[in-house]
Amino acid sequence: MILGKVVGTVWATRKDEELVGMKFQLVKHVDLEYKLKDSFVVAVDTVQAGVGDIVLVTSGSSARQTAQTKNKPVDAVIVAVVDKLDVAD
Amino acid sequence: MILGKVVGTVWATRKDEELVGMKFQLVKHVDLEYKLKDSFVVAVDTVQAGVGDIVLVTSGSSARQTAQTKNKPVDAVIVAVVDKLDVAD
Amino acid sequence: MILGKVVGTVWATRKDEELVGMKFQLVKHVDLEYKLKDSFVVAVDTVQAGVGDIVLVTSGSSARQTAQTKNKPVDAVIVAVVDKLDVAD
Amino acid sequence: MILGKVVGTVWATRKDEELVGMKFQLVKHVDLEYKLKDSFVVAVDTVQAGVGDIVLVTSGSSARQTAQTKNKPVDAVIVAVVDKLDVAD
Amino acid sequence: MILGKVVGTVWATRKDEELVGMKFQLVKHVDLEYKLKDSFVVAVDTVQAGVGDIVLVTSGSSARQTAQTKNKPVDAVIVAVVDKLDVAD
Repeated sequence: MILGKVVGTVWATRKDEELVGMKFQLVKHVDLEYKLKDSFVVAVDTVQAGVGDIVLVTSGSSARQTAQTKNKPVDAVIVAVVDKLDVAD
Repeated sequence: MILGKVVGTVWATRKDEELVGMKFQLVKHVDLEYKLKDSFVVAVDTVQAGVGDIVLVTSGSSARQTAQTKNKPVDAVIVAVVDKLDVAD
Repeated sequence: MILGKVVGTVWATRKDEELVGMKFQLVKHVDLEYKLKDSFVVAVDTVQAGVGDIVLVTSGSSARQTAQTKNKPVDAVIVAVVDKLDVAD
Repeated sequence: MILGKVVGTVWATRKDEELVGMKFQLVKHVDLEYKLKDSFVVAVDTVQAGVGDIVLVTSGSSARQTAQTKNKPVDAVIVAVVDKLDVAD
Repeated sequence: MILGKVVGTVWATRKDEELVGMKFQLVKHVDLEYKLKDSFVVAVDTVQAGVGDIVLVTSGSSARQTAQTKNKPVDAVIVAVVDKLDVAD
């Protein structure tokens, strides 16, 4: 999984019918100090993550292993909201 | 999903028979201000996206989860046309 | 799919038995003006692409969705020979 | 598989229900001398790897091929703790 | 597939039980002149490749399409030992 921060939302009216009702979040990659990187991914939210939340994003076929995304044309999904990191010194 | 902009079309007469009838669009990656990056992908269009549209592209095995691309040798598909992004300040 | 140019062939006698009879092409990535990049991939050819051809390469599990590569340990396959690109100004 | 070093742990209370009970480790990529790179991945631990361990991480759909991660929305899993590398001079 | 050179072996006693008996090789990426790059991958060897051999590595779910790696948590496998490359001038 990659570590990211929700920075916004994507609005799209015209889309594959399998995607209707899904929420697409903009997730910027972050480092271990939560500093934003330039790269980002658009991920479906299944855990009601909000803007500003640090999250874990699962990619690829594993992104279809949640109840909401099963068999959907989705390749990135937010699977957790991070409380904190314990990083060894 | 990645965020991109349709910048053109690929013409290919000789191709795998499973790909006949598909439209291949050139999609350049963009940043959150829709600024074009150098990198791009060739994606099958299933939502009638046109040149200039900002789109979401699904990659990998998830690209085969649309009605048109099921079981096809396709690894990137346009699944939505983006209306707008809400990006937090 | 990625856009590339066939620049050569790989010869390999000792290989997984599932790969016997396949043709492995060296495909360099190209930009929208067909300029060669440094990066490349080795792809199975299913459309009789020759050296110098501009091609589309499908990667990952989707590379196993052609008649020739089904269930084979192949992660890249040439699926089309490109005639031309229409790129918007 | 990629070679990495466990540098910490991720705590996340709110998550996909399929992930309950899993341990998420922060794994930084390392080179052949175990020197840390900047990049990292969050991986589920199935071999009781601890902070400081050099590990192998399997990614993508293959990350779901362990007893603990089968059918779970997980795209990276620690599958081995490395004892040593034999690198040719 | 990617082109690489076997530069060593990984020893790991503690590992997922599905991996017992597999040989893990360190494979550095090479260019078309077999010059070593810095990047590398750990791949399961199914063709008895030895240190110094130039090899093809299959990644992702396709790495599970060999007799030895079927249904295993393996995302990279050596599928061929390269005899030579024919590269066009």
